[in-house]
Amino acid sequence: MGAGTRIEEALSAAIDAADGPSCPPGLAAAMRYTVFPGGARVRPKLCLAVALACGDDRPELSNAAAAAIELLHCASLVHDDLPCFDNAALRRGKPSVHCTFGEPLAVLTGDALIVMAFETLARAAGAAPERLGPLVSIVGRGVGAPFGLCAGQAWESEPAAPLREYQRAKTGALFIAATAAGAAAAGADPAPWRALGDRLGEAYQVADDLKDALEDAATIGKPVGVDAALARPNAVCELGVEGAVGRLKQLIGGALAAIPDCPGADMLEAIVKGEAERLAPAKALPEKRRVRVAA
Amino acid sequence: MGAGTRIEEALSAAIDAADGPSCPPGLAAAMRYTVFPGGARVRPKLCLAVALACGDDRPELSNAAAAAIELLHCASLVHDDLPCFDNAALRRGKPSVHCTFGEPLAVLTGDALIVMAFETLARAAGAAPERLGPLVSIVGRGVGAPFGLCAGQAWESEPAAPLREYQRAKTGALFIAATAAGAAAAGADPAPWRALGDRLGEAYQVADDLKDALEDAATIGKPVGVDAALARPNAVCELGVEGAVGRLKQLIGGALAAIPDCPGADMLEAIVKGEAERLAPAKALPEKRRVRVAA
Repeated sequence: MGAGTRIEEALSAAIDAADGPSCPPGLAAAMRYTVFPGGARVRPKLCLAVALACGDDRPELSNAAAAAIELLHCASLVHDDLPCFDNAALRRGKPSVHCTFGEPLAVLTGDALIVMAFETLARAAGAAPERLGPLVSIVGRGVGAPFGLCAGQAWESEPAAPLREYQRAKTGALFIAATAAGAAAAGADPAPWRALGDRLGEAYQVADDLKDALEDAATIGKPVGVDAALARPNAVCELGVEGAVGRLKQLIGGALAAIPDCPGADMLEAIVKGEAERLAPAKALPEKRRVRVAA
Repeated sequence: MGAGTRIEEALSAAIDAADGPSCPPGLAAAMRYTVFPGGARVRPKLCLAVALACGDDRPELSNAAAAAIELLHCASLVHDDLPCFDNAALRRGKPSVHCTFGEPLAVLTGDALIVMAFETLARAAGAAPERLGPLVSIVGRGVGAPFGLCAGQAWESEPAAPLREYQRAKTGALFIAATAAGAAAAGADPAPWRALGDRLGEAYQVADDLKDALEDAATIGKPVGVDAALARPNAVCELGVEGAVGRLKQLIGGALAAIPDCPGADMLEAIVKGEAERLAPAKALPEKRRVRVAA
């Protein structure tokens, strides 16, 4: 079974477990709407790729780790879109959750998806209970305080935020959790896998900053120019477009160099190169080929 | 060390772990403000009391379970108070989190406290890893969908909500999680402990409905009359004041009867009776003694 299918099936199983006559229908619908159809599923794919590179001896647990990472990512998007943050009407090319289901259900959907992520890990860890603690800690560190998504988002409420800490917490932390959780789900030491997630996460954030500055809303399926409007730290504001493109290239090179020596190294290298192609902004410079990341 | 001290120390350790130079100062302050000073700490006390009744052979894990339950309760209060829900200016006698720190940090504080609850369990489970899975599942069921706090709150977004399901999810589920987690933390079977949590949770909700209908804001430290204003299901609206008082009495009797036969049964009975005294509404009927729950 391919990685994409494994991820979609694990996410479906998680959402199905919350649905049914006992669940308020609006909440069940909003949770499903948030998770399906997905975006690129980059983080869970990365998680599964690392699990495979580490032997994937507990596929159920690898699937659960990938699903947990994606559920937390989806939760963060729902809350990020709320009126008190980005006030975004559009997400993944369709109306955002609070626009469709109202603000109360959007808050609760995010909350319930966070809880679901940890329940999903616990449900799958029966056969390897000693792996659950490290997995919960890895995933928690990626989304909570002081290092995770919540902290990253909270830097936006500070009068000044350090760019690297902000980006590492807001984007990098969940990528680090994805690679580390992939290793931990397969019973491997997660430590050597953190650097790969760190570099890819920063590359993602720089690419996102470039998109926010350069692309139009129809192309990327969400509002643009938000960072500048909200005066947020942004790699393009700090480095300029060409500087940010150079940084992106450097980070992808760093990600490739950070892949630990393992049987699945070639597969991971191909995945990172594919992502590099996908991340390169189409409109950064007149000739698209020039901004493709060569690494 | 008394139960109260154990709970406060476990909560302090959890909050301290999120604080520090890496955490945005506003988020760290808002999380601490949310958790300290606490309310009656009823749920974690109940959790610890059950753990003690079951032998409390892993005190660190019992403390973590109690802290996790309270962190989730605090998270739910912060989100409940948001403008899109109760829009409450006051909580535990002081300005609510969103009034003090702004709405973005209130949303993130709730999110980060949910994550922290699971991290707290994982951190303490090192010596008994086989207990972590059941604990995460028990706690997750108490707060997520379809049976937990989030589902309970989401019933308020439905055109009609069944009173029992609504109250069981919104209040009962976390009480059930408290008793079941106390047992699981001590390595005991949680199943026989669920009924005690269920009865006490419903008693709590009925008492809260009575307070909302009868007391003044200064006495209970939060706004009153909210349920009626928002047309929410409420035991007083459904049963009348005397009917609700009768139901409360019946539920406390049920809670006492649900205490499993165990060495700590007497202690638990004393705790439930103490809570019954505390829950009885001061203003329900002219003679306070008449509404005290006799059980």
